[in-house]
Amino acid sequence: MDSNFPFLNQIVNPLDLHKLSDKELAEVAKEVRRAILEKVSQTGGHFSSNLGTVELTVAMYASYHIPGDKVIWDTGHQAYPHKLLTGRLPRFETLRKHKGLSGFLKRDEHELDYFGAGHAGTAISAALGFAAARDQVGGKEKVVAVTGDAAICAGMSWEALNHAGELGTDLHVVLNDNRMSIAPNVGALTNYFNRLRSRPYVQNMAQTAKRVIEKIPGPAPRIAAGLRHGVTHYFAPEQTGTIFEEMGFEYIGPVDGHDLPTLLEIFRNIQEVRYPVFIHAITVKGKGYDVAEEDATKWHGVVPFELEKCELPSKAAVSNYTSVFGDAMKEIGEADQKVVAITAAMPDGTGLNGFKAKLPAQYYDVGIAEQHGVTFAAGLAAAGMKPFVAIYSTFLQRGYDQVLHDVCIQNLPVRFAMDRAGLVGDDGPTHHGTFDISFLTHIPNMTLCAPRDATELREMMQLMAGYDRGPIAVRYPRGNTPDNLPESRTSIEFGKAEVLGVPGVPRGEEGKLDVVLVAVGSMVTEAWAAAQKLADEGKTALVINARWCKPIDWQTVAQHLTSSTLLVTIEENVRSGGFGQQLLDLLVENDVPISKFKVMSLPDSWVHHGAQPIIRGEQGLDANGIVEVVKSNVMKRGLA
Amino acid sequence: MDSNFPFLNQIVNPLDLHKLSDKELAEVAKEVRRAILEKVSQTGGHFSSNLGTVELTVAMYASYHIPGDKVIWDTGHQAYPHKLLTGRLPRFETLRKHKGLSGFLKRDEHELDYFGAGHAGTAISAALGFAAARDQVGGKEKVVAVTGDAAICAGMSWEALNHAGELGTDLHVVLNDNRMSIAPNVGALTNYFNRLRSRPYVQNMAQTAKRVIEKIPGPAPRIAAGLRHGVTHYFAPEQTGTIFEEMGFEYIGPVDGHDLPTLLEIFRNIQEVRYPVFIHAITVKGKGYDVAEEDATKWHGVVPFELEKCELPSKAAVSNYTSVFGDAMKEIGEADQKVVAITAAMPDGTGLNGFKAKLPAQYYDVGIAEQHGVTFAAGLAAAGMKPFVAIYSTFLQRGYDQVLHDVCIQNLPVRFAMDRAGLVGDDGPTHHGTFDISFLTHIPNMTLCAPRDATELREMMQLMAGYDRGPIAVRYPRGNTPDNLPESRTSIEFGKAEVLGVPGVPRGEEGKLDVVLVAVGSMVTEAWAAAQKLADEGKTALVINARWCKPIDWQTVAQHLTSSTLLVTIEENVRSGGFGQQLLDLLVENDVPISKFKVMSLPDSWVHHGAQPIIRGEQGLDANGIVEVVKSNVMKRGLA
Repeated sequence: MDSNFPFLNQIVNPLDLHKLSDKELAEVAKEVRRAILEKVSQTGGHFSSNLGTVELTVAMYASYHIPGDKVIWDTGHQAYPHKLLTGRLPRFETLRKHKGLSGFLKRDEHELDYFGAGHAGTAISAALGFAAARDQVGGKEKVVAVTGDAAICAGMSWEALNHAGELGTDLHVVLNDNRMSIAPNVGALTNYFNRLRSRPYVQNMAQTAKRVIEKIPGPAPRIAAGLRHGVTHYFAPEQTGTIFEEMGFEYIGPVDGHDLPTLLEIFRNIQEVRYPVFIHAITVKGKGYDVAEEDATKWHGVVPFELEKCELPSKAAVSNYTSVFGDAMKEIGEADQKVVAITAAMPDGTGLNGFKAKLPAQYYDVGIAEQHGVTFAAGLAAAGMKPFVAIYSTFLQRGYDQVLHDVCIQNLPVRFAMDRAGLVGDDGPTHHGTFDISFLTHIPNMTLCAPRDATELREMMQLMAGYDRGPIAVRYPRGNTPDNLPESRTSIEFGKAEVLGVPGVPRGEEGKLDVVLVAVGSMVTEAWAAAQKLADEGKTALVINARWCKPIDWQTVAQHLTSSTLLVTIEENVRSGGFGQQLLDLLVENDVPISKFKVMSLPDSWVHHGAQPIIRGEQGLDANGIVEVVKSNVMKRGLA
Repeated sequence: MDSNFPFLNQIVNPLDLHKLSDKELAEVAKEVRRAILEKVSQTGGHFSSNLGTVELTVAMYASYHIPGDKVIWDTGHQAYPHKLLTGRLPRFETLRKHKGLSGFLKRDEHELDYFGAGHAGTAISAALGFAAARDQVGGKEKVVAVTGDAAICAGMSWEALNHAGELGTDLHVVLNDNRMSIAPNVGALTNYFNRLRSRPYVQNMAQTAKRVIEKIPGPAPRIAAGLRHGVTHYFAPEQTGTIFEEMGFEYIGPVDGHDLPTLLEIFRNIQEVRYPVFIHAITVKGKGYDVAEEDATKWHGVVPFELEKCELPSKAAVSNYTSVFGDAMKEIGEADQKVVAITAAMPDGTGLNGFKAKLPAQYYDVGIAEQHGVTFAAGLAAAGMKPFVAIYSTFLQRGYDQVLHDVCIQNLPVRFAMDRAGLVGDDGPTHHGTFDISFLTHIPNMTLCAPRDATELREMMQLMAGYDRGPIAVRYPRGNTPDNLPESRTSIEFGKAEVLGVPGVPRGEEGKLDVVLVAVGSMVTEAWAAAQKLADEGKTALVINARWCKPIDWQTVAQHLTSSTLLVTIEENVRSGGFGQQLLDLLVENDVPISKFKVMSLPDSWVHHGAQPIIRGEQGLDANGIVEVVKSNVMKRGLA
């Protein structure tokens, strides 16, 4: 028990909030905010978005009846208050740590995490599923989706609103409108929200709402029914309807998302409404921590910091893949005006901020809209431009059909830069980029490369800029670029692997090889380290940097195989459809004799969150793991 | 030259239309409609949607300057008038035939097919890409997206409108609103369109539009500028804005999409507008062919028929996979109220019409919204229901991220029924379902089966209904179910393959095998036929029905391998990440001795349209192709 949080300590589940007075609820909100400040400053994690949802969550959870009623949170990184109000304060210092609390909602973490999410835009769809299931069995519980102003611009939110409006069932959608997602928001809808927000009476909204709601006569159902032409039109008299009304929702708002008394009134009053209601709450990202309010983007996700100092520890100036990509994009864009860069709401995360500042006319932020982003790029390419689409590996999954149908069928030269390929670490399974080799290389016309380090990433991007024959993609991991690899390097050639050799042995003098290690991208540095360890033990391991996942240079690999060589492939991708499986197929198809073949990859199961080195190690995808596989297999024979 | 079409014969590209008078353009429209009636009744193809876009296309192409200006058609099956106005009348009898004209737009078919599409909702994104490219190089050409009232409900259309509204550039979006896509439309937005349409003055719209536009004073730019508070508000005086205006578009409409003079006026007048304009045209599917107007769904896609008879040839009452699925769904749904079925705008195509009629409360049509459909199902499953998601293999690509992120990470028991798995035939590469083994089986927790015939499909669906351990999918092809397979069958067991044996040889007496054929789903019937042919030539071929693509029953295969057996896998899927490659990996990983292994699959290239037997044969995926592979490999040794 943490005596600093007397109220929060009493709250095991949200029903406990119903026992408290409004004044006490205000104290709860203060404790929740304080808990986020104190705990997240120690653990790191999503910071400013969670400071913005404190009052909203307290008001909802004091109004809905949970367990029973179901609140579905979009993306989940605005849901720390939810975690704190569902009895997880004692474990909060384990947040995002290995085997600790997830940074997102997770069904197997807590029974009140009804639906997990790391990708944006899923909450309304999932909530509508819960609502439809309730209707099927004649239940009465409320279902609520909490989404954000960026997530609602994702196409699937629109699809869900459209369906919800048609079904007309009991569903509440709460828009947590903090006027930005990770970065300041884009899109016409943002301007629309700005117009809604800018109505002159918004300032007095809290008081007005209270008075309006008090004046509505009759019992709760009548209050609810009255809303359609009551509060909505009171708040928005000059509008006959908002977009959300046109879609079949009762629209309430905008309301001040930090005004707890007003929020409580509204959420209590709509408990009896049995049709779609849209509650538009305006919140401030970083609320209650001045510097975070001022620069919410900077404080979106934080490393541990000192709360009193009000500043984040300065980042060490090491070169990471993201910054290398960003710098290379700037160079490429400056050299060729046909080069344009596209991000889906992540100029910071992808490293495009510098490009944006330097070449604003060549830069497009499409919002959380990966599908559109990909086909928009296809259109640009069809019109003769050279688009680079910078989307994290995990988020490009959203654009899979567009990559296939709009880019690859038409063989359009769209360049894809996939950061965060492989295990990402703290964000966990919703964010691991561990499928892209599989989901891209099976598409005809696609090509895919993976650099071993910063220099190769730069060179591959140069190659991509000049590659006009069709779609091309590059995958690179989260984190710093390695510096343990041999300095001598061969230039990047389309479809050609690079033989790094045996550590400490001049090229051409390798002699009989015990093992050939073929590594993809992030795993080259681990393979090299493994080869060094093996050399110490008297085993000769040749390292090949695959460079290309499609086409795969099986010929170079084959050249180094003899009837007794162990062949090991290493990749940060699932096995099925991955590099190793495809290389095996190519070797067998081409009658290359294989003595023993081991594929090292990610398992056919979900890898939990935790620091990158820890979870890579658990999966055997590091130098030690490679050494172990080699040792346990080098003496064995197989296949024949 | 076809003397029946004097005007159409003169038109090589749309600029030729600019030389004609409005009266002559009306004749052109008549010829286009007649050409569709006469040609498509002979060839078969998309029928009613193309009869609906005749005047719209003539009006646009007589107003925009093509080549130069770019019109991007959504989905493309509304674009036969476009094909006829771009010089393709002489080749029209080859429509959808092998090596003939595609039923969709195709960049490599014609230079004025600026962007191809078979999946809905891509046009606005692609057009915005063209517009952005134009702006990058300082071009002046117009860019137009033509979308439909169903396609605009796809999430990516919303994403594109949002981005277009923000960019504020010169983009025209034409909504071809025929009040249904393939089937009658669903969704709140449909109701919204109905409200727009139902305004009392819509009936007199054509005349009104003409007068309004004539009254606007000044030269073209001023006319254009005047539109914002001119035509829009004249047509919609009680609205301060439509959804599309809120998104940053000038809204014009609704206009009668068959009133050529009005359409010409409008499109000519907006030529000088340099910001986003949304033109809402109401068309009638099947226009000009009475029975098609009355039942546009029935006449959406047609086989060849006699134009004068006004009826489609009655379908032979053979059992196809789609109807078997539909019947099985009814049984399953009647037996268990927790079973719900979800379609994305295709109750007909998926075979769910019967279910819909019988169990309307357990049926959901989410519109063209595969992303939402999948996550909606995930919500239903999380709430304890048993959702079956019936989406064609090719369209499930749209929901890949949702399958992965919302269904599989959470291990929710959503059932996926993928019709049209494999080569679909006439619709061609945008519609082939040739990736699902690859894109589903690499996702942890997913399982996938494929029936050899109707009986197995029914039994697999029964298994799926009772399978609560996680996600499960079934893939089956377009077409009739085979009847050449042995009647004796083993019951479906999770993860177990079925040994069909050697044709004509009692089980247990097979003796030494020359070859083991492991076939997936649609290929089992071909493998059996191949084994029969091989038997005639004295070769012993054992056929195994794989049944499961995940998990793969490699043990059953291994039992039948000896040091000299040729192993051949056959699947209607691409090779990378497919069944054969994964089986090979499993056998090698488990040290099963393999003498010779051949994977038969679809190539790493796009397979063109054509009748199913023709294109399957071209790819070697039929009995003859299998026999050929066996003969050319059975004597060879490899691997060891």
